Amino acid sequence: MSNSRAGSQNRDDEENAQLLNEQSYIEPNVKQKKKKFFAVAIGAFLITVSLAAIIFEISSLLYARKNKRNVILLISDGFGPASETFGRSYYQFVNDLPWDQIAPLDKMLVGTSRTRSSSSLVTDSAAGATAFSCAIKTYNAGIGVHPDQTPCGTILESAKAKGILTGLVVTSRITHATPASFSAHVINRNMESEIAAQQIGDYPLGRQVDLMFGGGRCYFLGNSTEGSCRTDTRDVMSDAKKQFHYLNAIRSLPILGLFTLDHMSYEIDRDPATEPSLKEMSAKAIELLTKATEDSDKGFFLMIEGSRIDMAAHSNDAPTHAHEISAYYETIDHVREYVDNHPNTVMISVSDHETGGLALSRQNDIAKYPQYQWFPEILQRVNMSSYLLAKKINEYNEKDKVEFIKNSIREELGIDDFTEDDVKYLSKPEEFEMAYEYYLSNMTSARALIGWSTHGHTAVDVNLYAHGMNAEKLAGNHENTHIGDFIIDFLGLDLSSITLLLNKDNSSFHLSNYKDISQFNIDNLAHYHHGHQL
Amino acid sequence: MSNSRAGSQNRDDEENAQLLNEQSYIEPNVKQKKKKFFAVAIGAFLITVSLAAIIFEISSLLYARKNKRNVILLISDGFGPASETFGRSYYQFVNDLPWDQIAPLDKMLVGTSRTRSSSSLVTDSAAGATAFSCAIKTYNAGIGVHPDQTPCGTILESAKAKGILTGLVVTSRITHATPASFSAHVINRNMESEIAAQQIGDYPLGRQVDLMFGGGRCYFLGNSTEGSCRTDTRDVMSDAKKQFHYLNAIRSLPILGLFTLDHMSYEIDRDPATEPSLKEMSAKAIELLTKATEDSDKGFFLMIEGSRIDMAAHSNDAPTHAHEISAYYETIDHVREYVDNHPNTVMISVSDHETGGLALSRQNDIAKYPQYQWFPEILQRVNMSSYLLAKKINEYNEKDKVEFIKNSIREELGIDDFTEDDVKYLSKPEEFEMAYEYYLSNMTSARALIGWSTHGHTAVDVNLYAHGMNAEKLAGNHENTHIGDFIIDFLGLDLSSITLLLNKDNSSFHLSNYKDISQFNIDNLAHYHHGHQL
Repeated sequence: MSNSRAGSQNRDDEENAQLLNEQSYIEPNVKQKKKKFFAVAIGAFLITVSLAAIIFEISSLLYARKNKRNVILLISDGFGPASETFGRSYYQFVNDLPWDQIAPLDKMLVGTSRTRSSSSLVTDSAAGATAFSCAIKTYNAGIGVHPDQTPCGTILESAKAKGILTGLVVTSRITHATPASFSAHVINRNMESEIAAQQIGDYPLGRQVDLMFGGGRCYFLGNSTEGSCRTDTRDVMSDAKKQFHYLNAIRSLPILGLFTLDHMSYEIDRDPATEPSLKEMSAKAIELLTKATEDSDKGFFLMIEGSRIDMAAHSNDAPTHAHEISAYYETIDHVREYVDNHPNTVMISVSDHETGGLALSRQNDIAKYPQYQWFPEILQRVNMSSYLLAKKINEYNEKDKVEFIKNSIREELGIDDFTEDDVKYLSKPEEFEMAYEYYLSNMTSARALIGWSTHGHTAVDVNLYAHGMNAEKLAGNHENTHIGDFIIDFLGLDLSSITLLLNKDNSSFHLSNYKDISQFNIDNLAHYHHGHQL
Repeated sequence: MSNSRAGSQNRDDEENAQLLNEQSYIEPNVKQKKKKFFAVAIGAFLITVSLAAIIFEISSLLYARKNKRNVILLISDGFGPASETFGRSYYQFVNDLPWDQIAPLDKMLVGTSRTRSSSSLVTDSAAGATAFSCAIKTYNAGIGVHPDQTPCGTILESAKAKGILTGLVVTSRITHATPASFSAHVINRNMESEIAAQQIGDYPLGRQVDLMFGGGRCYFLGNSTEGSCRTDTRDVMSDAKKQFHYLNAIRSLPILGLFTLDHMSYEIDRDPATEPSLKEMSAKAIELLTKATEDSDKGFFLMIEGSRIDMAAHSNDAPTHAHEISAYYETIDHVREYVDNHPNTVMISVSDHETGGLALSRQNDIAKYPQYQWFPEILQRVNMSSYLLAKKINEYNEKDKVEFIKNSIREELGIDDFTEDDVKYLSKPEEFEMAYEYYLSNMTSARALIGWSTHGHTAVDVNLYAHGMNAEKLAGNHENTHIGDFIIDFLGLDLSSITLLLNKDNSSFHLSNYKDISQFNIDNLAHYHHGHQL
């Protein structure tokens, strides 16, 4: 470049020409220079643009990856504060650990959850799970619906709408209150035939769940098929197989695995050759969901339920309760390890309510000061749930029933000091369906000094555990709906848009076929808490 | 000063002279200048030193003030997780609050405390309080002693040694397990005669407590005096009056106020004209301790116990339990306000254990599915503890006892639908001491749908609440000893030096006079949980 006025003039002209796109009066050698200049400029421009694009791409990816989040919500159904002390103490006993060696959950206690429903201080599992899934209080028995019975969008559905993959792992029927409240909308929890249909996508939103592991095949079989518990002839399973890879088929999402007709077996009764454990199902679910989201900028939402912790407590069956808790602890350990290796994940463990009014102490003689003791060895000797043992005793029709009962008590409960009155009670016919089961449960609890005050739920606040990303935000005492709110915030969900979709055109899908509520009488305890078929 | 070489030379000489202290050859006008210089230098030096001293003094004071800390440890004896849900729900009911309006404690939940003692999963209040006071696990019934029965230094004693003022406020006898574990050392909680003597300073450390409010005057009166419950004739009260201002005397520290012979009345039975409430005692204690430490660089340690929350639970008396909790909540509110205005203070609220196996739900008919309900209005109608009503019924010797019983049930329990069987039971003599009391308690609990599983303690983890300075350090699930450790750290205490002092020369003061353990039989329930004299 020249410092002379002429040069300066030339340059000004050149710039003006560029500006005005007038090239006519520019000299050839200047043109040559200009060509080179343009080539360099365009090259630089292209490189800059490419670099910017690459940087933008990487940033976006990093940003998306940074915002790729997983939620693993573990629900310990019917597991109250006393269940944790009980579970820990049993865990210490069977693993021969010192008293200050704590259990898997203890390391991640952050607060407590208030459990009441909109209809009662004492919630049921439907309202309890809907508090988590829709972040609202609803009435006992309501599944994914508001107190006015209209459907509420769930965190699972909203996650799915966002491209986040979704899964449910349970040990109950997959159509039972807790998993149903995330994946279906019905005005009463007993509408399990309708719940099954909705879970495979037969409702306004279509299929929302990418993975379902659990029990409850019976609600997927038409009632002309043996083992069905549906109210109609519909073969939901063949529809399900169009939507999901079914077990023993391709092991990738979407996948459905229903391992038993009814609830899966209690852990204490489980045959590992035929049924997976809660931990095994959970590990497989996490593996599949992780793989499926590997190259995605979206994570997954997985709900895992230790469903039958609750049912053992309903039966006041302390050893069965202990085994269910141990299976849950194993699952917690596995999930915790996953979370430690995946910093964009949060795990939450919470109960919907307490069951049984479990107390770690019991007064067998009201006129004597109670012993400040408990005897875990009594529980350790038990080999069978009182549910299954009662069933066996009830179904025993051969001779020497008294001998059969005596041997069963010795072998399955590990009790030698039973009385003639015990045998007499268990030998005579009982009208009340659960009589033997409760009786057998009481035989172990009374000896171990475990107290219970009901076969139903209680209202005590339950413990809240969390670990991983943002876990500290759950610290303190909260309404159960806060757990839903936390997940909404964590995943950036919008439940109201889902609620709008569900209620479009005054939808009535959540009411369909529910003609006779009385047929699902709440007195039918076995239906709620046990399998009529295993 | 001159820039000339001569002047420069002069100055060098002058400086040398100063250095060598040789003044002989210095001229008079230079000497005059030097005098002025010294005067100014000394003045400046003195001012600097004075300023430094003042700054140092202020800094020290600020540092001390900054390190002046108060601890208010509130113990809700026998208040388990279910008691909190129960207390909150009752609080909402009687105050006509919406269900999401929480109770005073809920705002400050930080974690839970594992309660087991060294001898059992189920602790008693002695081992439970010693876990807080000495930060060690000991055996049930041990008061401020190690499992090997040697005394352990307490946080109260260590605080006192540091110049921190100390106080105990309770509604039980001041010699009862919880306050005793901070201020005495005996191998068995029943040694209340010895505890009383130690509390007024009759033990190796001398007087350690600056303020004691509560019940239990009977252990301060020699057994030749009416109302005494001492095992000897010693008039501890007259010794106490040498150590403390007694009530109605000068209202300043050290102060002792024992308002009843035995435990103070249950809140539901309390006559405000004759007995202060827990809140009133606590407010006065805080006022006196604050005033006494006003100009000091040391703060105070105050333990406040809602002692009889536990006793009502021992009786399975739900309405009395509710009233005790409400009185505790009032106290919490007051203390919290104090903490908010005194940033160098931390308040902790924790229970030693749960009592009664309280459950918010109850199954009155085993063959029917339990109601998911509770009826607080049943509790609200009750006007008298079942302890006091049972005592009245028991002591009634006039005619028409049946009518008296019927009227009492109607008026004091607010129950109209009692049966003839109820009246018959309460009319006939009962050998078992607590029979009427338990029976009356059950009449309200059964109707309100409140479950209990023992008249003793249970092992469930209890809630841990904290507010104020460093409260966040208590977050999570801990052994009960951690509460002691937290206070040690917060106040910078050294318990081991106290332990050494207590055990000097193989001391045996904690064993003295304890000849016959059987005289304090644990079956004597009334002695533990109620007053034999009010």
